[in-house]
Amino acid sequence: MKKLSIIGTVAYDSIKSPHGERERILGGSASFSSIAASLFNESHIVSIVGQDFESKYLDFFNERGINTTGIEIADGNTFHWSGYYEKDMAEAFTLQTDLNVLLAFNPVVPEHCKDSGIVFCANIDPVLQKQAIEQFQNPELVILDTMNFWIEHSKDALLEVLKLVDILIVNDGEARQLTGESNIVNALDALIQLGPKRVIVKKGEHGSIMYDGISHFTCPALPIRNLIDPTGAGDSFAGAFAGYLSSSNSRTEQDFRKAVAFGSIVSAHTVQGFSFDALNKLTLPAVHEQLLAIHNLSSI
Amino acid sequence: MKKLSIIGTVAYDSIKSPHGERERILGGSASFSSIAASLFNESHIVSIVGQDFESKYLDFFNERGINTTGIEIADGNTFHWSGYYEKDMAEAFTLQTDLNVLLAFNPVVPEHCKDSGIVFCANIDPVLQKQAIEQFQNPELVILDTMNFWIEHSKDALLEVLKLVDILIVNDGEARQLTGESNIVNALDALIQLGPKRVIVKKGEHGSIMYDGISHFTCPALPIRNLIDPTGAGDSFAGAFAGYLSSSNSRTEQDFRKAVAFGSIVSAHTVQGFSFDALNKLTLPAVHEQLLAIHNLSSI
Repeated sequence: MKKLSIIGTVAYDSIKSPHGERERILGGSASFSSIAASLFNESHIVSIVGQDFESKYLDFFNERGINTTGIEIADGNTFHWSGYYEKDMAEAFTLQTDLNVLLAFNPVVPEHCKDSGIVFCANIDPVLQKQAIEQFQNPELVILDTMNFWIEHSKDALLEVLKLVDILIVNDGEARQLTGESNIVNALDALIQLGPKRVIVKKGEHGSIMYDGISHFTCPALPIRNLIDPTGAGDSFAGAFAGYLSSSNSRTEQDFRKAVAFGSIVSAHTVQGFSFDALNKLTLPAVHEQLLAIHNLSSI
Repeated sequence: MKKLSIIGTVAYDSIKSPHGERERILGGSASFSSIAASLFNESHIVSIVGQDFESKYLDFFNERGINTTGIEIADGNTFHWSGYYEKDMAEAFTLQTDLNVLLAFNPVVPEHCKDSGIVFCANIDPVLQKQAIEQFQNPELVILDTMNFWIEHSKDALLEVLKLVDILIVNDGEARQLTGESNIVNALDALIQLGPKRVIVKKGEHGSIMYDGISHFTCPALPIRNLIDPTGAGDSFAGAFAGYLSSSNSRTEQDFRKAVAFGSIVSAHTVQGFSFDALNKLTLPAVHEQLLAIHNLSSI
Protein backbone atom coordinates (compact mmCIF):
# COMPACT_ATOMS: atom_id res chain seq x y z
CA MET A 1 0.00 0.00 0.00
CA LYS A 2 1.42 3.35 -1.10
CA LYS A 3 0.18 6.87 -0.41
CA LEU A 4 -1.45 8.30 -3.55
CA SER A 5 -1.59 12.00 -4.42
CA ILE A 6 -3.51 13.41 -7.37
CA ILE A 7 -2.88 16.87 -8.83
CA GLY A 8 -5.52 18.20 -11.18
CA THR A 9 -8.72 20.18 -11.55
CA VAL A 10 -11.95 20.13 -9.59
CA ALA A 11 -14.56 21.77 -11.76
CA TYR A 12 -18.12 22.42 -12.71
CA ASP A 13 -19.11 21.06 -16.11
CA SER A 14 -22.11 22.05 -18.22
CA ILE A 15 -22.65 19.38 -20.84
CA LYS A 16 -24.94 18.66 -23.75
CA SER A 17 -24.85 15.17 -25.21
CA PRO A 18 -27.36 13.41 -27.48
CA HIS A 19 -28.63 11.86 -24.23
CA GLY A 20 -29.45 15.08 -22.42
CA GLU A 21 -28.15 18.24 -20.87
CA ARG A 22 -26.72 18.98 -17.44
CA GLU A 23 -25.78 22.33 -15.85
CA ARG A 24 -22.90 22.78 -13.41
CA ILE A 25 -22.36 19.16 -12.49
CA LEU A 26 -19.23 18.00 -10.67
CA GLY A 27 -16.31 17.45 -13.04
CA GLY A 28 -12.58 17.99 -13.32
CA SER A 29 -9.62 15.66 -13.82
CA ALA A 30 -8.76 15.31 -10.11
CA SER A 31 -12.40 14.60 -9.27
CA PHE A 32 -12.81 11.79 -11.78
CA SER A 33 -9.42 10.26 -11.11
CA SER A 34 -9.72 10.34 -7.32
CA ILE A 35 -13.22 8.84 -7.31
CA ALA A 36 -11.99 6.09 -9.68
CA ALA A 37 -8.93 5.50 -7.48
CA SER A 38 -11.14 5.34 -4.39
CA LEU A 39 -12.35 1.91 -5.52
CA PHE A 40 -8.85 0.69 -4.64
CA ASN A 41 -7.29 3.09 -2.17
CA GLU A 42 -7.46 6.40 -0.36
CA SER A 43 -5.96 9.40 -2.11
CA HIS A 44 -5.10 13.05 -1.59
CA ILE A 45 -6.23 15.75 -4.01
CA VAL A 46 -4.10 18.82 -4.71
CA SER A 47 -6.35 21.33 -6.49
CA ILE A 48 -8.18 24.64 -6.26
CA VAL A 49 -11.85 25.64 -6.21
CA GLY A 50 -13.75 28.92 -5.72
CA GLN A 51 -16.13 30.26 -3.13
CA ASP A 52 -19.05 28.88 -5.15
CA PHE A 53 -17.90 25.28 -4.70
CA GLU A 54 -20.60 23.38 -2.82
CA SER A 55 -19.47 21.70 0.38
CA LYS A 56 -21.59 18.65 -0.46
CA TYR A 57 -18.98 17.74 -3.04
CA LEU A 58 -16.18 17.91 -0.47
CA ASP A 59 -18.34 15.62 1.67
CA PHE A 60 -18.76 13.34 -1.35
CA PHE A 61 -14.98 13.09 -1.75
CA ASN A 62 -14.39 12.55 1.97
CA GLU A 63 -16.99 9.79 2.12
CA ARG A 64 -15.05 7.99 -0.61
CA GLY A 65 -11.85 8.15 1.45
CA ILE A 66 -10.42 11.09 -0.48
CA ASN A 67 -8.49 13.63 1.55
CA THR A 68 -9.40 17.15 0.42
CA THR A 69 -7.15 19.24 2.66
CA GLY A 70 -4.99 19.90 -0.42
CA ILE A 71 -7.91 21.58 -2.21
CA GLU A 72 -7.40 25.33 -1.82
CA ILE A 73 -10.61 27.34 -1.57
CA ALA A 74 -9.75 30.63 -3.25
CA ASP A 75 -11.54 33.90 -3.85
CA GLY A 76 -13.53 33.78 -7.09
CA ASN A 77 -15.42 31.06 -8.88
CA THR A 78 -14.60 27.44 -9.56
CA PHE A 79 -13.20 26.43 -12.97
CA HIS A 80 -16.18 25.92 -15.29
CA TRP A 81 -16.14 24.03 -18.59
CA SER A 82 -19.08 24.05 -20.91
CA GLY A 83 -19.21 21.83 -23.98
CA TYR A 84 -21.15 19.40 -26.09
CA TYR A 85 -20.87 16.09 -27.89
CA GLU A 86 -22.33 15.33 -31.29
CA LYS A 87 -24.07 12.10 -32.26
CA ASP A 88 -20.98 9.89 -32.44
CA MET A 89 -19.56 11.45 -29.21
CA ALA A 90 -16.04 10.95 -30.56
CA GLU A 91 -14.98 14.50 -29.71
CA ALA A 92 -15.75 17.08 -27.02
CA PHE A 93 -16.55 20.51 -28.45
CA THR A 94 -15.93 23.41 -26.09
CA LEU A 95 -18.55 26.13 -25.84
CA GLN A 96 -16.89 28.08 -23.06
CA THR A 97 -13.98 27.72 -20.65
CA ASP A 98 -14.07 29.90 -17.55
CA LEU A 99 -10.72 29.26 -15.90
CA ASN A 100 -11.65 31.45 -12.92
CA VAL A 101 -9.57 30.43 -9.85
CA LEU A 102 -7.51 28.09 -12.01
CA LEU A 103 -5.74 31.18 -13.37
CA ALA A 104 -4.11 31.59 -9.96
CA PHE A 105 -3.46 27.87 -9.36
CA ASN A 106 -0.09 27.34 -7.84
CA PRO A 107 -0.11 23.77 -6.59
CA VAL A 108 1.13 23.44 -3.03
CA VAL A 109 1.58 19.85 -1.93
CA PRO A 110 0.58 19.54 1.77
CA GLU A 111 3.33 18.29 4.09
CA HIS A 112 1.50 15.03 4.82
CA CYS A 113 1.40 14.20 1.08
CA LYS A 114 5.06 14.79 0.27
CA ASP A 115 6.00 11.19 1.03
CA SER A 116 3.46 9.83 -1.49
CA GLY A 117 4.68 6.72 -3.30
CA ILE A 118 2.43 7.30 -6.28
CA VAL A 119 1.82 10.72 -7.81
CA PHE A 120 -0.73 11.21 -10.55
CA CYS A 121 -0.49 14.53 -12.39
CA ALA A 122 -3.77 14.87 -14.24
CA ASN A 123 -4.09 17.23 -17.17
CA ILE A 124 -3.03 20.77 -16.21
CA ASP A 125 -0.36 23.20 -17.47
CA PRO A 126 2.91 21.21 -17.69
CA VAL A 127 4.71 24.04 -15.89
CA LEU A 128 2.45 23.43 -12.88
CA GLN A 129 2.83 19.66 -13.25
CA LYS A 130 6.61 20.02 -12.94
CA GLN A 131 6.26 22.40 -10.00
CA ALA A 132 4.00 19.88 -8.22
CA ILE A 133 6.15 16.83 -8.94
CA GLU A 134 9.24 18.56 -7.56
CA GLN A 135 7.57 18.98 -4.17
CA PHE A 136 7.40 15.22 -3.61
CA GLN A 137 10.21 13.35 -1.89
CA ASN A 138 11.36 10.64 -4.25
CA PRO A 139 8.02 9.10 -5.29
CA GLU A 140 8.20 5.56 -6.63
CA LEU A 141 5.95 6.26 -9.64
CA VAL A 142 5.03 9.55 -11.27
CA ILE A 143 2.12 9.12 -13.68
CA LEU A 144 1.17 11.95 -16.03
CA ASP A 145 -1.65 12.87 -18.39
CA THR A 146 -1.77 15.83 -20.78
CA MET A 147 -3.89 17.13 -23.67
CA ASN A 148 -3.69 18.53 -27.20
CA PHE A 149 -3.74 22.16 -25.93
CA TRP A 150 -0.42 21.80 -24.08
CA ILE A 151 1.17 19.78 -26.89
CA GLU A 152 0.35 22.66 -29.23
CA HIS A 153 1.05 25.63 -26.95
CA SER A 154 3.52 24.45 -24.28
CA LYS A 155 5.47 21.66 -25.93
CA ASP A 156 8.82 22.66 -24.43
CA ALA A 157 7.43 22.67 -20.90
CA LEU A 158 5.74 19.37 -21.57
CA LEU A 159 8.96 17.77 -22.85
CA GLU A 160 10.67 19.11 -19.72
CA VAL A 161 8.19 17.51 -17.30
CA LEU A 162 8.21 14.23 -19.27
CA LYS A 163 11.79 13.71 -18.11
CA LEU A 164 10.45 13.37 -14.55
CA VAL A 165 7.69 10.95 -15.51
CA ASP A 166 7.61 7.16 -15.04
CA ILE A 167 4.32 6.45 -16.79
CA LEU A 168 2.67 8.61 -19.44
CA ILE A 169 -1.03 8.13 -20.19
CA VAL A 170 -2.38 9.84 -23.32
CA ASN A 171 -4.98 9.16 -25.98
CA ASP A 172 -4.12 8.12 -29.54
CA GLY A 173 -4.62 11.58 -31.01
CA GLU A 174 -2.28 13.09 -28.42
CA ALA A 175 0.31 10.35 -28.99
CA ARG A 176 0.29 11.11 -32.72
CA GLN A 177 0.35 14.89 -32.19
CA LEU A 178 3.21 14.75 -29.70
CA THR A 179 5.44 12.48 -31.81
CA GLY A 180 4.40 13.27 -35.40
CA GLU A 181 4.09 9.51 -35.95
CA SER A 182 0.82 8.36 -37.53
CA ASN A 183 1.51 4.69 -36.78
CA ILE A 184 0.71 4.17 -33.09
CA VAL A 185 3.43 1.52 -32.67
CA ASN A 186 6.02 3.98 -33.91
CA ALA A 187 4.46 6.70 -31.74
CA LEU A 188 4.92 4.45 -28.68
CA ASP A 189 8.60 3.99 -29.57
CA ALA A 190 8.99 7.75 -29.88
CA LEU A 191 7.19 8.47 -26.59
CA ILE A 192 9.51 6.12 -24.70
CA GLN A 193 12.43 8.18 -26.05
CA LEU A 194 11.01 11.26 -24.31
CA GLY A 195 11.61 9.90 -20.82
CA PRO A 196 8.74 7.77 -19.52
CA LYS A 197 9.59 4.13 -18.77
CA ARG A 198 6.10 3.07 -19.70
CA VAL A 199 3.44 4.58 -21.96
CA ILE A 200 -0.28 3.87 -22.16
CA VAL A 201 -2.30 5.05 -25.14
CA LYS A 202 -6.08 5.12 -24.71
CA LYS A 203 -8.11 4.55 -27.86
CA GLY A 204 -11.73 4.87 -26.67
CA GLU A 205 -13.90 2.06 -28.05
CA HIS A 206 -10.73 0.40 -29.41
CA GLY A 207 -9.32 -0.18 -25.94
CA SER A 208 -5.79 0.75 -24.97
CA ILE A 209 -2.20 -0.25 -25.58
CA MET A 210 0.68 -0.22 -23.08
CA TYR A 211 4.36 -0.31 -23.95
CA ASP A 212 7.46 -0.44 -21.76
CA GLY A 213 10.05 -0.27 -24.53
CA ILE A 214 10.05 -4.07 -24.88
CA SER A 215 6.60 -5.58 -25.00
CA HIS A 216 3.13 -4.37 -25.90
CA PHE A 217 -0.08 -5.10 -24.03
CA THR A 218 -3.40 -4.50 -25.76
CA CYS A 219 -6.45 -4.21 -23.54
CA PRO A 220 -9.88 -4.33 -25.16
CA ALA A 221 -12.66 -1.92 -24.23
CA LEU A 222 -15.76 -3.47 -22.70
CA PRO A 223 -18.53 -3.39 -25.32
CA ILE A 224 -20.80 -0.46 -24.41
CA ARG A 225 -24.19 0.07 -26.02
CA ASN A 226 -25.25 2.99 -23.89
CA LEU A 227 -22.66 5.75 -24.09
CA ILE A 228 -24.16 8.73 -22.26
CA ASP A 229 -21.33 11.19 -21.60
CA PRO A 230 -17.64 10.57 -22.35
CA THR A 231 -16.47 13.34 -19.97
CA GLY A 232 -14.04 11.96 -17.41
CA ALA A 233 -13.35 8.69 -19.23
CA GLY A 234 -9.61 9.33 -19.51
CA ASP A 235 -9.34 10.69 -15.97
CA SER A 236 -11.14 7.75 -14.44
CA PHE A 237 -8.98 5.36 -16.50
CA ALA A 238 -5.83 6.95 -15.08
CA GLY A 239 -7.32 7.16 -11.58
CA ALA A 240 -8.20 3.48 -11.47
CA PHE A 241 -4.78 2.62 -12.91
CA ALA A 242 -2.96 4.69 -10.25
CA GLY A 243 -5.36 3.60 -7.51
CA TYR A 244 -4.82 -0.08 -8.19
CA LEU A 245 -1.02 0.27 -8.28
CA SER A 246 -1.09 2.25 -5.03
CA SER A 247 -3.09 -0.52 -3.36
CA SER A 248 -0.34 -3.07 -3.98
CA ASN A 249 3.44 -3.21 -3.64
CA SER A 250 3.92 -5.70 -6.44
CA ARG A 251 5.20 -4.33 -9.77
CA THR A 252 5.27 -7.25 -12.18
CA GLU A 253 4.22 -6.85 -15.82
CA GLN A 254 0.99 -8.58 -14.80
CA ASP A 255 0.33 -5.92 -12.15
CA PHE A 256 0.63 -3.17 -14.75
CA ARG A 257 -1.64 -5.12 -17.10
CA LYS A 258 -4.25 -5.55 -14.38
CA ALA A 259 -3.99 -1.83 -13.63
CA VAL A 260 -4.71 -1.04 -17.30
CA ALA A 261 -7.64 -3.48 -17.32
CA PHE A 262 -9.05 -1.81 -14.18
CA GLY A 263 -8.65 1.55 -15.90
CA SER A 264 -10.54 0.24 -18.89
CA ILE A 265 -13.35 -1.20 -16.75
CA VAL A 266 -13.81 1.89 -14.58
CA SER A 267 -13.79 4.31 -17.52
CA ALA A 268 -16.36 2.13 -19.30
CA HIS A 269 -18.66 2.73 -16.33
CA THR A 270 -17.98 6.44 -16.09
CA VAL A 271 -19.26 7.08 -19.62
CA GLN A 272 -22.57 5.35 -18.98
CA GLY A 273 -23.86 8.34 -17.02
CA PHE A 274 -23.37 12.07 -16.62
CA SER A 275 -20.77 13.22 -14.08
CA PHE A 276 -20.47 10.56 -11.36
CA ASP A 277 -23.95 9.06 -11.80
CA ALA A 278 -22.69 5.70 -13.11
CA LEU A 279 -19.16 5.66 -11.66
CA ASN A 280 -20.50 6.22 -8.16
CA LYS A 281 -22.56 3.01 -8.36
CA LEU A 282 -19.57 0.87 -9.28
CA THR A 283 -18.22 -1.42 -6.54
CA LEU A 284 -14.91 -3.23 -6.20
CA PRO A 285 -16.50 -6.71 -6.46
CA ALA A 286 -18.18 -5.61 -9.72
CA VAL A 287 -14.84 -4.33 -11.02
CA HIS A 288 -13.21 -7.68 -10.26
CA GLU A 289 -16.05 -9.48 -12.02
CA GLN A 290 -15.49 -7.32 -15.09
CA LEU A 291 -11.83 -8.31 -15.08
CA LEU A 292 -13.04 -11.78 -16.01
CA ALA A 293 -15.18 -10.23 -18.76
CA ILE A 294 -12.10 -8.43 -20.14
CA HIS A 295 -10.21 -11.71 -20.05
CA ASN A 296 -13.02 -13.57 -21.83
CA LEU A 297 -13.31 -10.86 -24.48
CA SER A 298 -9.90 -11.64 -25.89
CA SER A 299 -9.16 -15.20 -24.84
CA ILE A 300 -8.62 -17.62 -27.70
CA MET B 1 -11.55 -30.69 -44.15
CA LYS B 2 -14.05 -28.88 -46.39
CA LYS B 3 -13.77 -27.80 -49.99
CA LEU B 4 -13.24 -24.02 -50.19
CA SER B 5 -14.34 -21.84 -53.10
CA ILE B 6 -13.50 -18.16 -53.40
CA ILE B 7 -15.37 -15.77 -55.70
CA GLY B 8 -13.71 -12.42 -56.33
CA THR B 9 -11.35 -10.42 -58.49
CA VAL B 10 -7.93 -11.23 -59.92
CA ALA B 11 -6.37 -7.93 -60.89
CA TYR B 12 -3.40 -5.81 -61.68
CA ASP B 13 -2.69 -3.04 -59.19
CA SER B 14 -0.56 0.05 -59.68
CA ILE B 15 0.23 1.51 -56.29
CA LYS B 16 2.03 4.47 -54.81
CA SER B 17 2.71 4.43 -51.10
CA PRO B 18 5.15 6.49 -49.02
CA HIS B 19 7.40 3.42 -49.29
CA GLY B 20 7.58 3.26 -53.07
CA GLU B 21 5.74 2.71 -56.28
CA ARG B 22 4.80 -0.46 -58.17
CA GLU B 23 3.27 -0.87 -61.64
CA ARG B 24 0.85 -3.68 -62.58
CA ILE B 25 1.58 -6.00 -59.69
CA LEU B 26 -0.68 -8.94 -58.90
CA GLY B 27 -3.70 -7.93 -56.84
CA GLY B 28 -7.41 -8.56 -56.50
CA SER B 29 -9.61 -9.85 -53.71
CA ALA B 30 -9.62 -13.50 -54.86
CA SER B 31 -5.83 -13.45 -55.27
CA PHE B 32 -5.11 -12.18 -51.77
CA SER B 33 -7.73 -14.34 -50.09
CA SER B 34 -6.77 -17.56 -51.87
CA ILE B 35 -3.05 -17.10 -51.18
CA ALA B 36 -3.84 -16.41 -47.52
CA ALA B 37 -6.14 -19.45 -47.40
CA SER B 38 -3.44 -21.61 -48.99
CA LEU B 39 -1.53 -21.54 -45.70
CA PHE B 40 -4.30 -23.79 -44.36
CA ASN B 41 -6.00 -25.51 -47.29
CA GLU B 42 -6.46 -25.80 -51.03
CA SER B 43 -9.05 -23.58 -52.62
CA HIS B 44 -10.82 -22.92 -55.91
CA ILE B 45 -10.99 -19.44 -57.43
CA VAL B 46 -14.01 -18.29 -59.44
CA SER B 47 -12.96 -15.14 -61.27
CA ILE B 48 -12.17 -13.55 -64.64
CA VAL B 49 -8.99 -12.15 -66.23
CA GLY B 50 -8.08 -10.80 -69.65
CA GLN B 51 -5.74 -11.89 -72.41
CA ASP B 52 -2.98 -9.77 -70.84
CA PHE B 53 -2.92 -11.86 -67.68
CA GLU B 54 0.49 -13.45 -67.31
CA SER B 55 0.50 -17.22 -67.03
CA LYS B 56 3.24 -17.04 -64.38
CA TYR B 57 0.58 -15.86 -61.96
CA LEU B 58 -1.63 -18.85 -62.70
CA ASP B 59 1.45 -21.00 -62.02
CA PHE B 60 1.95 -19.06 -58.77
CA PHE B 61 -1.60 -19.89 -57.68
CA ASN B 62 -1.30 -23.53 -58.72
CA GLU B 63 1.97 -23.97 -56.85
CA ARG B 64 0.17 -22.79 -53.71
CA GLY B 65 -2.52 -25.47 -54.17
CA ILE B 66 -5.05 -23.08 -55.64
CA ASN B 67 -7.23 -24.46 -58.40
CA THR B 68 -7.60 -21.89 -61.19
CA THR B 69 -9.89 -23.74 -63.59
CA GLY B 70 -12.69 -21.41 -62.45
CA ILE B 71 -10.77 -18.36 -63.67
CA GLU B 72 -12.27 -17.42 -67.04
CA ILE B 73 -9.79 -15.95 -69.51
CA ALA B 74 -11.87 -13.50 -71.51
CA ASP B 75 -11.24 -11.20 -74.44
CA GLY B 76 -9.93 -7.84 -73.32
CA ASN B 77 -7.72 -6.74 -70.47
CA THR B 78 -7.57 -7.72 -66.82
CA PHE B 79 -9.21 -5.51 -64.21
CA HIS B 80 -6.70 -2.79 -63.28
CA TRP B 81 -6.81 -0.61 -60.17
CA SER B 82 -4.49 2.28 -59.71
CA GLY B 83 -4.29 4.20 -56.45
CA TYR B 84 -2.18 5.71 -53.74
CA TYR B 85 -1.82 5.97 -50.00
CA GLU B 86 -0.87 9.12 -48.10
CA LYS B 87 1.51 9.23 -45.16
CA ASP B 88 -0.79 7.65 -42.56
CA MET B 89 -1.94 5.00 -45.09
CA ALA B 90 -5.35 4.98 -43.42
CA GLU B 91 -7.23 5.24 -46.71
CA ALA B 92 -6.75 4.07 -50.31
CA PHE B 93 -7.27 6.85 -52.83
CA THR B 94 -8.25 5.68 -56.31
CA LEU B 95 -6.52 7.25 -59.31
CA GLN B 96 -8.13 5.06 -61.92
CA THR B 97 -10.30 1.97 -62.11
CA ASP B 98 -10.28 0.08 -65.40
CA LEU B 99 -12.91 -2.59 -64.94
CA ASN B 100 -12.12 -4.12 -68.35
CA VAL B 101 -13.20 -7.82 -68.40
CA LEU B 102 -14.85 -7.38 -65.02
CA LEU B 103 -17.67 -5.54 -66.82
CA ALA B 104 -18.68 -8.86 -68.35
CA PHE B 105 -18.09 -10.99 -65.25
CA ASN B 106 -20.84 -13.49 -64.81
CA PRO B 107 -19.55 -15.94 -62.21
CA VAL B 108 -19.96 -19.56 -63.26
CA VAL B 109 -19.14 -22.01 -60.51
CA PRO B 110 -17.42 -25.09 -62.03
CA GLU B 111 -19.22 -28.39 -61.44
CA HIS B 112 -16.40 -29.73 -59.25
CA CYS B 113 -16.78 -26.74 -56.89
CA LYS B 114 -20.52 -26.85 -56.37
CA ASP B 115 -20.22 -29.14 -53.35
CA SER B 116 -17.91 -26.70 -51.54
CA GLY B 117 -18.49 -26.64 -47.80
CA ILE B 118 -17.10 -23.13 -47.42
CA VAL B 119 -17.81 -20.34 -49.86
CA PHE B 120 -16.07 -16.99 -49.56
CA CYS B 121 -17.58 -14.20 -51.63
CA ALA B 122 -14.94 -11.50 -51.72
CA ASN B 123 -15.89 -7.94 -52.57
CA ILE B 124 -17.73 -7.76 -55.92
CA ASP B 125 -21.18 -6.51 -57.02
CA PRO B 126 -23.70 -8.02 -54.56
CA VAL B 127 -25.90 -9.07 -57.52
CA LEU B 128 -23.03 -11.29 -58.70
CA GLN B 129 -22.37 -12.49 -55.15
CA LYS B 130 -25.96 -13.73 -54.91
CA GLN B 131 -25.77 -15.31 -58.35
CA ALA B 132 -22.60 -17.16 -57.34
CA ILE B 133 -23.87 -18.31 -53.93
CA GLU B 134 -27.02 -19.77 -55.49
CA GLN B 135 -24.94 -22.10 -57.66
CA PHE B 136 -23.57 -23.97 -54.62
CA GLN B 137 -25.36 -27.01 -53.21
CA ASN B 138 -26.08 -26.25 -49.58
CA PRO B 139 -22.67 -24.96 -48.39
CA GLU B 140 -22.08 -25.15 -44.66
CA LEU B 141 -20.72 -21.58 -44.38
CA VAL B 142 -21.14 -18.66 -46.74
CA ILE B 143 -18.73 -15.86 -45.84
CA LEU B 144 -19.09 -12.44 -47.46
CA ASP B 145 -17.15 -9.21 -47.76
CA THR B 146 -18.34 -5.96 -49.34
CA MET B 147 -17.27 -2.32 -49.62
CA ASN B 148 -18.51 1.26 -49.28
CA PHE B 149 -19.28 1.53 -53.03
CA TRP B 150 -21.95 -1.20 -52.89
CA ILE B 151 -23.37 0.06 -49.59
CA GLU B 152 -23.87 3.43 -51.25
CA HIS B 153 -24.99 2.35 -54.72
CA SER B 154 -26.46 -1.18 -54.41
CA LYS B 155 -27.79 -1.33 -50.88
CA ASP B 156 -30.96 -3.25 -51.79
CA ALA B 157 -29.00 -5.97 -53.63
CA LEU B 158 -26.56 -6.12 -50.71
CA LEU B 159 -29.37 -6.52 -48.17
CA GLU B 160 -30.78 -9.28 -50.39
CA VAL B 161 -27.55 -11.28 -50.50
CA LEU B 162 -26.97 -10.79 -46.75
CA LYS B 163 -29.98 -13.06 -46.14
CA LEU B 164 -27.95 -15.92 -47.64
CA VAL B 165 -24.82 -15.19 -45.60
CA ASP B 166 -23.58 -16.98 -42.49
CA ILE B 167 -20.60 -14.76 -41.71
CA LEU B 168 -20.18 -11.13 -42.76
CA ILE B 169 -16.69 -9.58 -42.71
CA VAL B 170 -16.52 -5.78 -43.07
CA ASN B 171 -14.38 -2.94 -41.80
CA ASP B 172 -15.54 -0.46 -39.18
CA GLY B 173 -16.34 2.28 -41.69
CA GLU B 174 -18.50 -0.12 -43.69
CA ALA B 175 -20.24 -1.39 -40.54
CA ARG B 176 -21.14 2.18 -39.58
CA GLN B 177 -22.19 3.11 -43.12
CA LEU B 178 -24.37 0.03 -43.58
CA THR B 179 -26.18 0.39 -40.24
CA GLY B 180 -26.13 4.14 -39.57
CA GLU B 181 -24.84 3.34 -36.07
CA SER B 182 -21.73 5.24 -34.98
CA ASN B 183 -21.17 2.99 -31.95
CA ILE B 184 -19.59 -0.21 -33.26
CA VAL B 185 -21.28 -2.39 -30.60
CA ASN B 186 -24.67 -1.12 -31.74
CA ALA B 187 -23.59 -1.56 -35.37
CA LEU B 188 -22.80 -5.23 -34.64
CA ASP B 189 -26.29 -5.67 -33.16
CA ALA B 190 -27.80 -4.12 -36.28
CA LEU B 191 -25.71 -6.22 -38.69
CA ILE B 192 -26.86 -9.43 -37.01
CA GLN B 193 -30.44 -8.32 -37.68
CA LEU B 194 -29.67 -8.28 -41.43
CA GLY B 195 -29.21 -12.05 -41.66
CA PRO B 196 -25.64 -13.15 -40.86
CA LYS B 197 -25.26 -15.41 -37.83
CA ARG B 198 -21.83 -13.98 -37.14
CA VAL B 199 -20.20 -10.65 -37.98
CA ILE B 200 -16.53 -9.67 -37.94
CA VAL B 201 -15.54 -6.01 -38.06
CA LYS B 202 -11.93 -5.26 -39.01
CA LYS B 203 -10.44 -2.10 -37.52
CA GLY B 204 -6.92 -1.99 -38.98
CA GLU B 205 -4.33 -1.21 -36.31
CA HIS B 206 -7.07 -1.54 -33.66
CA GLY B 207 -7.58 -5.23 -34.40
CA SER B 208 -10.99 -6.76 -34.99
CA ILE B 209 -14.17 -7.64 -33.18
CA MET B 210 -16.42 -10.67 -33.77
CA TYR B 211 -20.02 -10.99 -32.62
CA ASP B 212 -22.47 -13.88 -32.89
CA GLY B 213 -25.48 -12.15 -31.36
CA ILE B 214 -24.45 -13.26 -27.87
CA SER B 215 -20.79 -12.71 -27.12
CA HIS B 216 -18.05 -10.45 -28.43
CA PHE B 217 -14.48 -11.43 -29.21
CA THR B 218 -11.85 -8.74 -29.59
CA CYS B 219 -8.65 -9.70 -31.38
CA PRO B 220 -5.68 -7.33 -31.21
CA ALA B 221 -3.61 -6.43 -34.25
CA LEU B 222 0.03 -7.45 -34.12
CA PRO B 223 2.13 -4.31 -33.57
CA ILE B 224 3.57 -3.35 -36.96
CA ARG B 225 6.30 -0.76 -37.34
CA ASN B 226 6.86 -1.24 -41.04
CA LEU B 227 3.59 -0.75 -42.89
CA ILE B 228 4.47 -0.81 -46.60
CA ASP B 229 1.22 -1.30 -48.53
CA PRO B 230 -2.19 -1.93 -46.95
CA THR B 231 -3.65 -3.31 -50.22
CA GLY B 232 -5.06 -6.79 -49.68
CA ALA B 233 -5.11 -6.64 -45.88
CA GLY B 234 -8.84 -7.24 -45.64
CA ASP B 235 -8.83 -9.92 -48.32
CA SER B 236 -6.00 -11.85 -46.74
CA PHE B 237 -7.73 -11.56 -43.35
CA ALA B 238 -10.87 -13.13 -44.78
CA GLY B 239 -8.89 -15.69 -46.77
CA ALA B 240 -6.98 -16.92 -43.75
CA PHE B 241 -10.22 -16.98 -41.73
CA ALA B 242 -12.01 -19.05 -44.37
CA GLY B 243 -8.94 -21.18 -45.05
CA TYR B 244 -8.51 -22.14 -41.43
CA LEU B 245 -12.20 -23.01 -40.99
CA SER B 246 -12.10 -25.10 -44.16
CA SER B 247 -9.13 -27.05 -42.81
CA SER B 248 -11.09 -28.24 -39.79
CA ASN B 249 -14.53 -29.68 -39.14
CA SER B 250 -14.80 -28.31 -35.62
CA ARG B 251 -16.99 -25.24 -35.13
CA THR B 252 -16.68 -24.23 -31.50
CA GLU B 253 -16.47 -20.57 -30.46
CA GLN B 254 -12.75 -21.19 -29.98
CA ASP B 255 -12.42 -22.32 -33.61
CA PHE B 256 -13.98 -19.09 -34.84
CA ARG B 257 -11.71 -17.10 -32.50
CA LYS B 258 -8.64 -18.90 -33.79
CA ALA B 259 -9.81 -18.23 -37.35
CA VAL B 260 -10.04 -14.49 -36.56
CA ALA B 261 -6.59 -14.55 -34.97
CA PHE B 262 -5.16 -16.27 -38.05
CA GLY B 263 -6.84 -13.62 -40.20
CA SER B 264 -5.24 -10.93 -38.08
CA ILE B 265 -1.79 -12.54 -38.27
CA VAL B 266 -1.83 -13.14 -42.02
CA SER B 267 -3.11 -9.65 -42.87
CA ALA B 268 -0.39 -8.17 -40.64
CA HIS B 269 2.15 -9.87 -42.87
CA THR B 270 0.48 -8.89 -46.13
CA VAL B 271 0.83 -5.17 -45.39
CA GLN B 272 4.57 -5.43 -44.76
CA GLY B 273 5.27 -5.66 -48.48
CA PHE B 274 3.82 -4.75 -51.86
CA SER B 275 1.53 -7.29 -53.49
CA PHE B 276 2.52 -10.79 -52.28
CA ASP B 277 6.12 -9.95 -51.39
CA ALA B 278 5.67 -10.44 -47.64
CA LEU B 279 2.64 -12.74 -47.60
CA ASN B 280 4.38 -15.23 -49.86
CA LYS B 281 7.19 -15.66 -47.32
CA LEU B 282 4.84 -16.53 -44.48
CA THR B 283 4.75 -20.19 -43.42
CA LEU B 284 2.23 -22.13 -41.37
CA PRO B 285 4.68 -22.75 -38.49
CA ALA B 286 5.34 -18.99 -38.35
CA VAL B 287 1.60 -18.33 -38.29
CA HIS B 288 1.18 -20.73 -35.37
CA GLU B 289 4.02 -19.04 -33.53
CA GLN B 290 2.32 -15.68 -34.00
CA LEU B 291 -0.84 -17.12 -32.47
CA LEU B 292 1.12 -17.26 -29.23
CA ALA B 293 2.18 -13.64 -29.78
CA ILE B 294 -1.49 -12.64 -30.20
CA HIS B 295 -2.30 -14.50 -27.01
CA ASN B 296 0.55 -12.83 -25.10
CA LEU B 297 -0.46 -9.39 -26.39
CA SER B 298 -3.71 -9.42 -24.46
CA SER B 299 -3.18 -11.90 -21.64
CA ILE B 300 -3.52 -10.44 -18.17
